[in-house]
Amino acid sequence: MSFTLSQINDRLGGTLKGDGQARVQSVRSLDEAGPGDICVVWQADALHAASRCDATCIVTLENAGFEHENVIEVADPRLALAEILILIHSIKRAEFGVEPGAHIAADVVCNEVYVAAGARIATGVQLGRRVEVHANAVIGAGVKVGEGSIIHANATLCPGVQVGRRVVIHSNAVIGSDGFGYQSSDGSHRKIPQVGTVVIEDDVEIGAGTTIDRATLSRTIIRRGTKIDNLVQIAHNCDIGEDCVIVAQAGIAGSTTVGAGSIIGAQAGVADHVVVGRRVRVGAKSGVADNIPEGDWIGSPALPAVRARRALNLIGRLPEIYEELRSLRKTCSALEEKLDQAVMNDTE
Amino acid sequence: MSFTLSQINDRLGGTLKGDGQARVQSVRSLDEAGPGDICVVWQADALHAASRCDATCIVTLENAGFEHENVIEVADPRLALAEILILIHSIKRAEFGVEPGAHIAADVVCNEVYVAAGARIATGVQLGRRVEVHANAVIGAGVKVGEGSIIHANATLCPGVQVGRRVVIHSNAVIGSDGFGYQSSDGSHRKIPQVGTVVIEDDVEIGAGTTIDRATLSRTIIRRGTKIDNLVQIAHNCDIGEDCVIVAQAGIAGSTTVGAGSIIGAQAGVADHVVVGRRVRVGAKSGVADNIPEGDWIGSPALPAVRARRALNLIGRLPEIYEELRSLRKTCSALEEKLDQAVMNDTE
Amino acid sequence: MSFTLSQINDRLGGTLKGDGQARVQSVRSLDEAGPGDICVVWQADALHAASRCDATCIVTLENAGFEHENVIEVADPRLALAEILILIHSIKRAEFGVEPGAHIAADVVCNEVYVAAGARIATGVQLGRRVEVHANAVIGAGVKVGEGSIIHANATLCPGVQVGRRVVIHSNAVIGSDGFGYQSSDGSHRKIPQVGTVVIEDDVEIGAGTTIDRATLSRTIIRRGTKIDNLVQIAHNCDIGEDCVIVAQAGIAGSTTVGAGSIIGAQAGVADHVVVGRRVRVGAKSGVADNIPEGDWIGSPALPAVRARRALNLIGRLPEIYEELRSLRKTCSALEEKLDQAVMNDTE
Repeated sequence: MSFTLSQINDRLGGTLKGDGQARVQSVRSLDEAGPGDICVVWQADALHAASRCDATCIVTLENAGFEHENVIEVADPRLALAEILILIHSIKRAEFGVEPGAHIAADVVCNEVYVAAGARIATGVQLGRRVEVHANAVIGAGVKVGEGSIIHANATLCPGVQVGRRVVIHSNAVIGSDGFGYQSSDGSHRKIPQVGTVVIEDDVEIGAGTTIDRATLSRTIIRRGTKIDNLVQIAHNCDIGEDCVIVAQAGIAGSTTVGAGSIIGAQAGVADHVVVGRRVRVGAKSGVADNIPEGDWIGSPALPAVRARRALNLIGRLPEIYEELRSLRKTCSALEEKLDQAVMNDTE
Repeated sequence: MSFTLSQINDRLGGTLKGDGQARVQSVRSLDEAGPGDICVVWQADALHAASRCDATCIVTLENAGFEHENVIEVADPRLALAEILILIHSIKRAEFGVEPGAHIAADVVCNEVYVAAGARIATGVQLGRRVEVHANAVIGAGVKVGEGSIIHANATLCPGVQVGRRVVIHSNAVIGSDGFGYQSSDGSHRKIPQVGTVVIEDDVEIGAGTTIDRATLSRTIIRRGTKIDNLVQIAHNCDIGEDCVIVAQAGIAGSTTVGAGSIIGAQAGVADHVVVGRRVRVGAKSGVADNIPEGDWIGSPALPAVRARRALNLIGRLPEIYEELRSLRKTCSALEEKLDQAVMNDTE
Repeated sequence: MSFTLSQINDRLGGTLKGDGQARVQSVRSLDEAGPGDICVVWQADALHAASRCDATCIVTLENAGFEHENVIEVADPRLALAEILILIHSIKRAEFGVEPGAHIAADVVCNEVYVAAGARIATGVQLGRRVEVHANAVIGAGVKVGEGSIIHANATLCPGVQVGRRVVIHSNAVIGSDGFGYQSSDGSHRKIPQVGTVVIEDDVEIGAGTTIDRATLSRTIIRRGTKIDNLVQIAHNCDIGEDCVIVAQAGIAGSTTVGAGSIIGAQAGVADHVVVGRRVRVGAKSGVADNIPEGDWIGSPALPAVRARRALNLIGRLPEIYEELRSLRKTCSALEEKLDQAVMNDTE
């Protein structure tokens, strides 16, 4: 599938200098590109390299004064790169079919789906049209996977989990393992059965190695459109709102609610039973222990971002602050003495 | 399997108002419950919803003044929920049998065990009675798994690892991969063979995606009753005591010992060759670099909790502290000048 | 395979007291060792136990005054342990062969390789000589794996990934899942196709559960000799230099470059688009948000280590600092008053 430069320029809303009928079929980096490719360039040194590149078209910043056979100038080349990738490179889909070596329970209907060798589909599973289950993925008993969803190699959907449409679950993610709940007494811990489930709504993406635990009762829910990166932990009973972004290695503890449109940064942690509001942004590595209704938060314990930035920068100046304090103490003592002396002289 | 309300009330030590012979067979959340179900409620707004719920019985706080067909009043509803779940919902067990598509070495005896399709049991493995090995789990050569243990889908037990009785290992956990040991010289790193193993004692639970490395020599050991959450890293040669709790995404570096009954919070880290005492509690996100014999610890570097709470809260006030310091410096300078002036006037 | 004590002593450059022709074939811990074993001991209490050990040889610190049938004294016993392990215990290799139950595409040539039951090798894959693919590992379409590399059980190499020679990839690692890239507008997030790949160069080791994302364009690269621990996240477009060490649970965000020979500590994080220089060391749990050309860095935000150690230690003294400040303020006020009084008296 290829596109004319005019089609691409129309999508980007840029300025095309060159042949609008020339066609490209892929975006590539400068060092890999050749005829039929389009490159996007925004750094000065890259522009230099771009002038020697055989790509059919170079997309760059407006007024860059860059010359090439075909150039599209845009206001924001980074955004343009995303747009072109989305336009040209639709997500690759596997062809329908069940490979030999797939382990599929007798009651599972597999119409218009792809199931790879080694994948295991247990009893009672329902797969929507155009679902893909890749090699060695495990779909537990009674799981439902909605139309167009992709379960990548070695991912695990535990029994009873519900997955919506157009969901992508990456390799080695685990959806629906037991929540971490124990009844402790006299120092030992009895397992509390986790009889709830996990619901993943439409258009969610879940990264490689991420774990989402089933609820004690009811359900852990990841709402429509939310994107979760790799190695994230979502504990039991969490409710993650629509269109959230949760970056790699972040962790959300049990029964916590995250409002729609919020962003949880990499390696951040949110404590249990916390309510995070809508469109809240939590910085990387931050630790949220209390409810945060709105705004940007940084640090551990997390503070409003403006205050936190000033406070965290001052940590590095603590040695000077401490020195200054000691010096002031001396100054004060000297002053005190001098004053006492002065007063004494005065009264003499 | 169902229980009378009298049986449940006896277990809870509560006060039953209603029909002691009425029967329930599951605990559910308010929005899902109907006849035959029991609900546990402790928040005011939930109590309101509970009054319209068809559940056979509502468990709630004593003196809540709540009216329903059958009510059990207890001192601690959260605790009651755990008790009822443990009473009613025993952990679901798979039926014995080896599914077609399991890859089992010829010398492995599989009596009274469950082995799912795609599971791989290598040569020399010994499985105790009532062991479950779920789909696509891998049990390496020479591994021993004790009676009643459950190895979930896609988990990996590397060769030679020893697992006790009633252990639960969740999906995608890796037990016994090589410890991270290199001999570095001239800037390059030669791998040190890791010839030890991992021993998991009875009644341990290990979360999804958690990794526990084999020892360089001898063994990494997780002692009886310890519960480990998801995505935890336990490095080679660690000795984790009995009945510990290690929360999600925590990491314990090599050769570190954690005493019995200790709790390591989420995303906390303990450095290598450290000794953590018994019943120590390390807060979420804390960093422990030195031995801590007892008590509660918070922060990175970790401090005793009482001090740490005060110290960490003051980080947020560093901007004010800094301003105060500057203002004091000015005050002092002004005082100094004023005093000099006064003394000078005096001597004139 | 066994070694004479003379051979071992030659390798260690130590002093052998005993029978140079005695032979040993394994290193063991004191409590497991017997005839034919060699032990390495450096702690005082261990030396005491060693005197009662049947091991053929004890390696210990020079001038330890330790007596045993055969003793090798060395300057650095820890180093000696590594050396002996490397000498005696070469990494165990599987025998060539393809086990029944492996799922191998028709076009894949499997000469002199090991492929375990349940492993899946997709179309277009090229495996070098002496490659091992363990149980239930998944090798996606078009992947190349160089000579002598080992892919452990349940690991996933996504389509198109390139792996060099003598690489070790541990269980449940995921190489080449999609980078975390979205085009966000009006609060919703459109997936940006990730059409690049991952290149793992020779002699790299990648820990259990670690995730390395494919590039948006071009490639994420892990260069020769770098060692990565468990549960590490490497985001798309990263360039990790030669001979780096990245410790467990660290995370490197997108498009970041790490120079050769650098060490990233456990649970540390490096932000996106950052340049970390050569031989930089980042402490455990540190957070790097800006370029760091050289040196040792600690803390979050990361500071040069010397400064950071003083600064971080002062966090624990913030309560005293705060008290001191309040007390100084009082002292100053008292002085001010006293001085005013003195001046007033003077002028009266």
